[in-house]
Amino acid sequence: MSQGTRFDQELREQPAALARLLAQGREQAEAIAEAIRAAAPELVVIVARGSSHNAGRYAQYLFGIRNRLPVAYAAPSMYTLYQQPPVLRRALVIGISQSGQSPDVSAVMEESRRQGALTVAVTNDPASPLARVADHCLPLHAGPEQAVAATKTYTTQLLALAMLSTALGGTAADWDALAALPSAVAAALRLNADIVARAERYRYARQFVVIGRGYNLATAWELALKIKEITYIIAEPYSAAEFRHGPVALIEPGFPVLLVAPSGAAYGDTAALLALLEERGAEVIAISDQAALLARARTALPLPAGVSEWLSPLVAVVPGQLWAGALATVRGQDPDCPRGLRKVTYTH
Amino acid sequence: MSQGTRFDQELREQPAALARLLAQGREQAEAIAEAIRAAAPELVVIVARGSSHNAGRYAQYLFGIRNRLPVAYAAPSMYTLYQQPPVLRRALVIGISQSGQSPDVSAVMEESRRQGALTVAVTNDPASPLARVADHCLPLHAGPEQAVAATKTYTTQLLALAMLSTALGGTAADWDALAALPSAVAAALRLNADIVARAERYRYARQFVVIGRGYNLATAWELALKIKEITYIIAEPYSAAEFRHGPVALIEPGFPVLLVAPSGAAYGDTAALLALLEERGAEVIAISDQAALLARARTALPLPAGVSEWLSPLVAVVPGQLWAGALATVRGQDPDCPRGLRKVTYTH
Repeated sequence: MSQGTRFDQELREQPAALARLLAQGREQAEAIAEAIRAAAPELVVIVARGSSHNAGRYAQYLFGIRNRLPVAYAAPSMYTLYQQPPVLRRALVIGISQSGQSPDVSAVMEESRRQGALTVAVTNDPASPLARVADHCLPLHAGPEQAVAATKTYTTQLLALAMLSTALGGTAADWDALAALPSAVAAALRLNADIVARAERYRYARQFVVIGRGYNLATAWELALKIKEITYIIAEPYSAAEFRHGPVALIEPGFPVLLVAPSGAAYGDTAALLALLEERGAEVIAISDQAALLARARTALPLPAGVSEWLSPLVAVVPGQLWAGALATVRGQDPDCPRGLRKVTYTH
Repeated sequence: MSQGTRFDQELREQPAALARLLAQGREQAEAIAEAIRAAAPELVVIVARGSSHNAGRYAQYLFGIRNRLPVAYAAPSMYTLYQQPPVLRRALVIGISQSGQSPDVSAVMEESRRQGALTVAVTNDPASPLARVADHCLPLHAGPEQAVAATKTYTTQLLALAMLSTALGGTAADWDALAALPSAVAAALRLNADIVARAERYRYARQFVVIGRGYNLATAWELALKIKEITYIIAEPYSAAEFRHGPVALIEPGFPVLLVAPSGAAYGDTAALLALLEERGAEVIAISDQAALLARARTALPLPAGVSEWLSPLVAVVPGQLWAGALATVRGQDPDCPRGLRKVTYTH
C-alpha cells in the first residue's frame, strides 16, 4: 500500500512510537495523576478537533469505565463566538492536539484555567501554545508527523490517555498490558501485509458506513475520517446502537460497511448488527480477532488475539489505516497531500 | 411535497404542537426548574438516541451558554454492556425520547437516580418506562406521531428544553420570544411552499454534507438524519469548524452542501465557510434569513426574520424537513415507512 509515502512510513513507525512513549512518558503520567487526585475532579472535559477529537471519544469510555469519571466534550464556539462558557468548577480539562496550534482549543484551556480547573495538554509539541497555556503537558514523543492525515500521533494520543488512566487507578497488570501494545500493533501490520489486493474491489465505492461500539466507537470515527481525508469517499461513523435509530435505512444490497468488532463486552452487540447487515445484503469489511466473524465478511482485516478490549482501539485502527492508504493508492491519490487540507488547521 | 403523507401532515402540525406545549407545559417546567435549583447540579448529562440525541445537542449550547452548565452525553453501553457507569454526583440527568421505550435510555436514568442524581424525562408519552423511572417528566403534548421520521416531536423536544432553560434562568422577554415561535414556524412553512420544484434538481444526488455551527449544529445533525431516513442518500453533519479539520477534502465541483446559517453569533463563521465552498465549486443549498447569503446559494430555503439565535433551531429545521420530504417525493419514496425502520427502536 502507498509504499514510499510519508503516510505509509509514519503508520509503520507506530510500534516504535508507542514503545518510546511507554519508556519516556510514564513518570510524567504519574505526576499528572497525582495532581488529578489532589484536585478530585467531578468531570473530565475534552477539548479537541479532528483526529484528536476521536482520541477524546476513546477517553470517554476509558475514564468513564475505568476511572468512573463522566466525560464531556467542550464546544469551543461557546468560548470564541458566543463568549459565554460554562462554569467548570471541579473539572479536569484535557486539550488534545497533534500540533497544539489551533486557537479555539487553546481558548478553551485558557478560560478553564482562569476558572480554576486543572488543565492538561496532550500534544506532540511541548513548546506549542496549547502546552504553554496548560498546567501540565503530556508529550507524545511521536517524532515529526508530516503526512496531513494523522496516524502515529493518533495512536500515541490514545496511549497517553491510557497511561494517564492507568496512573490514576490501574494495576501492575494494566501496565503490563500497555507494555504489550507495540508488539500487538506490529502484529496487526504483519497480518495485513497483502492489503492492496484486498482494496482493489472498492476502487469505485461511492460511500461507506463505519461502525463500532463502546471503546471502538473512537476507531469507527477515526477510520471514517481517514477514508474521507485521503480517498475523498464519504464515510460516516456510527455506534452499532445509534445506527439502528435511523441510518440503517441507508443499507441496500451491496452497501459497503466497515465493521470494527474486536473481542470484548461490545462484541456481541456488534456481531448482532452483522446479522442485520447480512439480511439487508450489505457488503461487510470486518476488522476483528474473531475468526467466526471474519469468515462471514466479504473482506477480512484480521487483528492479533490477546489484546484487552480497553486497549483494542490502539490495535484495531491499524488495519483500517492500512486499508484507507491502500484504497487511496488503487484510486491513484496521494495520501500525503489531501486536497484542501494542511497539516495544521486554525479554527476559532 | 409528499402531500397527504403523515410526515407532511405532522410537520405542518408543528405551529399548533408548539403552541400547545407553551400553553400546557410552563407550570411543569417551572416546577422542575425549582427542583434543579435546589439540587444545584455541576453538570447536565443527556441520555438519548436518534433525533432525540440531536435535541440533546441543542441542549449543550442552550444550558452551556444561557445557564453556564457543562453538558455531557451519556454513553449507554457503559451501563448496559460494560456495567461500569461513571459516578454522577451532583448531575442533572435528562432522558429525551419520543416514545420513552428504549431500554438503554431507561437503564441510564435508573442507575443515575440510584446514585442520587436528579432525573428528568422529556417524552411524548408520560406513561412510558422512561417517564416512570425519572423523578420528573416534562411531556411534549405533541399528539400522536405516526411517521417513522420525527418532526413535531423533535421541535417540541427543543421547545421543552428551551422552556426548562428559561424557567431556570430566563427573563420575561425570553418567555415572549418563546411565545413567538409558533408563528415563526408557520412563516417558515409559508416561505417554502414551492419546495418540490426546488428539490427536483437533487433527484440523483448521491451524497450531502450538512453544516451548521453553535446552536444550529443540532439542526445540521437532525437534517442529515432526516435525509438519510427518508431519501436513503448518505448525508453527513458537521460543525463549520470541525469540517475544516479533514472532511473538507471531500469537496469537489458540484458536491452538494446544505448550509444552515441563520443570523447570530455563529453566522460569520458559517458565512466564511461559504466562501471556501464557493472556491471549491460546491453546490450550496442554504437555509438562512440573510438575503445576501441566500443570493449566493444555488438553492435558497428562506427563514423569517426576527428569530433570536438561541431559538433559531426550532425554525431553521423546518425548511430542511420540507426539503427532505420533497426529495423523497421526487425520488418516488414514501417518507412514512422508511425501509428497515420502525417507529420505536429498542437498543441495549
